Amino acid sequence: MADWQSVAGGVTAPKGYKASGITAGLKPSGAPDLALIWSEVEAIAAGVFTTSQVRAACVDYCRQRLQAKASANAILCNAGQANAATGAQGWADTLESAQLLAKEIGCAPESVLIASTGVIGQRIRMEQLRAGIPNLVAAASPTGSEDASKAIITTDLVPKSIALETSLDGRPVRIGGISKGSGMIHPNMATMLAFVTCDAAISPHLWQQMVSRAADKSFNQITVDGDTSTNDTLLALANGESRTPAITEMNDDAAKLEAMLTAVCIHLAKAIARDGEGATCLLEVHVAGAPDDTAARQVARAVAGSALLKSAIFGRDPNWGRIAAAAGRAGVAFDQGKLEIKLGSFLLMEHGQPLPFDRTAANAYLKQAAAGEYLTSDTVLISLNLGNGGGVGTAWGCDLSYDYVKINAEYTT
Amino acid sequence: MADWQSVAGGVTAPKGYKASGITAGLKPSGAPDLALIWSEVEAIAAGVFTTSQVRAACVDYCRQRLQAKASANAILCNAGQANAATGAQGWADTLESAQLLAKEIGCAPESVLIASTGVIGQRIRMEQLRAGIPNLVAAASPTGSEDASKAIITTDLVPKSIALETSLDGRPVRIGGISKGSGMIHPNMATMLAFVTCDAAISPHLWQQMVSRAADKSFNQITVDGDTSTNDTLLALANGESRTPAITEMNDDAAKLEAMLTAVCIHLAKAIARDGEGATCLLEVHVAGAPDDTAARQVARAVAGSALLKSAIFGRDPNWGRIAAAAGRAGVAFDQGKLEIKLGSFLLMEHGQPLPFDRTAANAYLKQAAAGEYLTSDTVLISLNLGNGGGVGTAWGCDLSYDYVKINAEYTT
Repeated sequence: MADWQSVAGGVTAPKGYKASGITAGLKPSGAPDLALIWSEVEAIAAGVFTTSQVRAACVDYCRQRLQAKASANAILCNAGQANAATGAQGWADTLESAQLLAKEIGCAPESVLIASTGVIGQRIRMEQLRAGIPNLVAAASPTGSEDASKAIITTDLVPKSIALETSLDGRPVRIGGISKGSGMIHPNMATMLAFVTCDAAISPHLWQQMVSRAADKSFNQITVDGDTSTNDTLLALANGESRTPAITEMNDDAAKLEAMLTAVCIHLAKAIARDGEGATCLLEVHVAGAPDDTAARQVARAVAGSALLKSAIFGRDPNWGRIAAAAGRAGVAFDQGKLEIKLGSFLLMEHGQPLPFDRTAANAYLKQAAAGEYLTSDTVLISLNLGNGGGVGTAWGCDLSYDYVKINAEYTT
Repeated sequence: MADWQSVAGGVTAPKGYKASGITAGLKPSGAPDLALIWSEVEAIAAGVFTTSQVRAACVDYCRQRLQAKASANAILCNAGQANAATGAQGWADTLESAQLLAKEIGCAPESVLIASTGVIGQRIRMEQLRAGIPNLVAAASPTGSEDASKAIITTDLVPKSIALETSLDGRPVRIGGISKGSGMIHPNMATMLAFVTCDAAISPHLWQQMVSRAADKSFNQITVDGDTSTNDTLLALANGESRTPAITEMNDDAAKLEAMLTAVCIHLAKAIARDGEGATCLLEVHVAGAPDDTAARQVARAVAGSALLKSAIFGRDPNWGRIAAAAGRAGVAFDQGKLEIKLGSFLLMEHGQPLPFDRTAANAYLKQAAAGEYLTSDTVLISLNLGNGGGVGTAWGCDLSYDYVKINAEYTT
C-alpha cells in the first residue's frame, strides 16, 4: 500500500500557496492563457529542462536563475506563444515578464520563474501580458489551482492535476502538481510543462536530486510522438510551511517524501501520455529482466514509442511481433530466445517464440481500454521480460490515430 | 556530372546474372512471392543486416554464411512470411530452402543466400516453397529482373529497380539493384531488402567495405516510421564477368566503382522512402555545418524522422519551428544563434531567428511536391546549416498521412 492519500487542491493543496489562471488575450481562441503559482514565503526551487539545442528564452532564463539561487517566490506561465527561436527580443520579453510580476507581488525579479508554451517562433504578446498581470495577481487564491491548470494547456483535452498527503514526524505534508502536454512529447523533457508544489522543509541540493530522479522515472518515460520540445520545463517548489522537520539527508523521511514526489510526477506524466494528441487509450509498458534499470527504461520507451505498435493498438490488434521488433531495436542486448511478452493477462510470447492465445479475447481487451474510463480502465498494459538481469522500468505512451495526423497537419504555424 | 549512365535491366544488367520471380502461393493475396537472383559463376558477396536483437532466421543464416565464405551463387527471397521469432523450426526452414535451391541449380548449399519478408512470427509456407523452386529456376532469365523486383515486395506500391554503367580500363562495368520497403523503415538497416549485382572483379574485403560505406550513406539514412525491422538485409554480389581488371586496393577505379555503387544504393533507398506507407511525397534533408559527417547524418535523420514535421508536410505547412525543434533534439551540439533553415529555395531561418517569407509560395511548393512525378519532382527539400563545422549529410523520409495509420491499424498479424 502507498504511504499517502489523495487530497483535493492541486498545487494549492500544500500550505502557503496561492494560484490563479485568467484569460489575458494571449491565445487567439480566447481560452485562459496566463497562470500564476505563488508561495507566501520564498521556497526552495528545483527544475528539469529540455535537453534540446534549440530552447525557448524562458528555459535558459530559469536554468540561469536556479543556478544562481535555488529558490523562488512564484512561477508565471503563459500559453499561446512558445517564445522559442525569438532571439534577443524573446529574452528581453522573458526578463520583462519576471519584472512585471515581481513588482506586482513584491518580490525580487530573480525570484520569479517563467514558463511558456505555444507556437515556436512567436514572441509573447507583451501588451496583453502587461495588462493581464495585475488581474492575475488579484485573482490568486488558495483554491486557484484548477484555474491555473486550465490556463497552462494548449491542445490538451483535459487539465491535469493531483495532490497527495503523507505525514512526517506526525505532521501532514503535501505535494501538489499540475501539467500540460500534448504533442512534441518524448523523453528528455518532453512541450510538456509541469509545476509541483510542496510544503516540506528540505535542503535545495536534496530537493533538486529528488526532482531529477522523479523526472527520470516519470516525465522522461513518456512519449507521444518522439519529438522533444524546445520548452519542456518541470519546476518544483518546497516552501517549508508544513513546519515538519527540515530534511537535509537521505533518511527515512526523505525517502518517504521522494516516493510521494515520484508518485505525483508519474500521475502527471501518465495524464500527459493519455492526453496525447489523438490518443484513444493509455499505453503502459513494463520491462523486467534488463541488465539494469536504465536499460529497462530504454526498452520500455522504445516499445511505447513505436509508431507501428501504436498504430496496431489503435487498430485493436494484439500484434506481439511489433512489440518484439521494437524491443529488439532499443539498443539493449538480450537473447531473443529468452524474450517473454504479455499483453494484459495474455501471454503472447515465451522463450522468444509466439504462443497460441485467445485472439478474440485479446482484441476485446484492447477495445475495452479504448472505451475505458480516463486514467483508470483505459490502460493497455504490455509487459516484457528480457531474461538478462534484474533491471526494471516503465514507460507510458498512447496509440497513434488518424486524429494525431489531423491535429498536426492542420495546426498552423 | 556523374561518371556513369543509366541502363535497363536491374539486377540482370550486369553480365552473367539471371533472375526470376513467380507466384508460389506464399502470399495469401496470390501476388508474386518468390524471387531468385543467380550468378553464372560464384560471385564475391557482401552483406549488411539489421542491428536488432530480434532477428529472422535468414539474417543469422546469411551473416554466418558470409563470415565463413564471402561468396555466393544465388539469392533466394520469399515474401509473405518473415520467418522471424520462429525458433529452431524457422532455422531449419531456412536451411532447407537453401538446400532445395542449391540442388536445383547445382551449387553448394553454402552458396545460397536467403532473405525473407512478411509477417513476423510466421514460418515460411514450406510446402508451397518446395513446389515453387523448380518453377522459379526454370523461369530464370537474363531479363528476369523486373519479375524478381515484383516478387520481393509486400505493401510497396511500386517495384524498385535501377542499373548504372561506367567503364574501367575502357571496358564497361555495371551495377544493378532492386529493393523493397515500406513500413518498419528506419536507420540500422530498416524490412527493407535490397539486392545489388555487379560484374566487376574485386577482392571480398574491399567489396564488403564499399557495401558497408554505401549502406551508411543510403539505406541507413532513410526513415519511414522509426521502426527497425527484424529482417533488414542488403546483399551485394560481384561476379567479375565484366572482365575488367581486378580491384584489390582503393585506387581510382575502386573509387569510381564505389561512387556508382553508392549512387545505386541511394536510388534504391530513396525509392523506399518515397514509397513509405501512406506517403504523398519524398522528404530530402541536407545538413551542413556539423562537427563531422556522422553528426550531420544524425541530425538529418532526426529531422526526416520527426512525426510532427512529417504531419506538417502532409498538411503542406512550411513549419520551420518543427524543423528547428527536431534538429535541436538530435543529440548534436550547435549554437541555436547560428542555425539556418531553408525549405526548397525559401530561407525560413537565419542566425536562429525566423525570417519573413512568402507563405503562399512556400505552401505552393509543398503542394507541388505532393502532386509531383515519382522520384523526380515529388521531393520536398529541407536544408539546414548548423554553423558548427564542415560535416555534411543527407537523409530521406516521407510525410505522415492518415493512410500510414490506416495501413498499420488494419494490417493483420
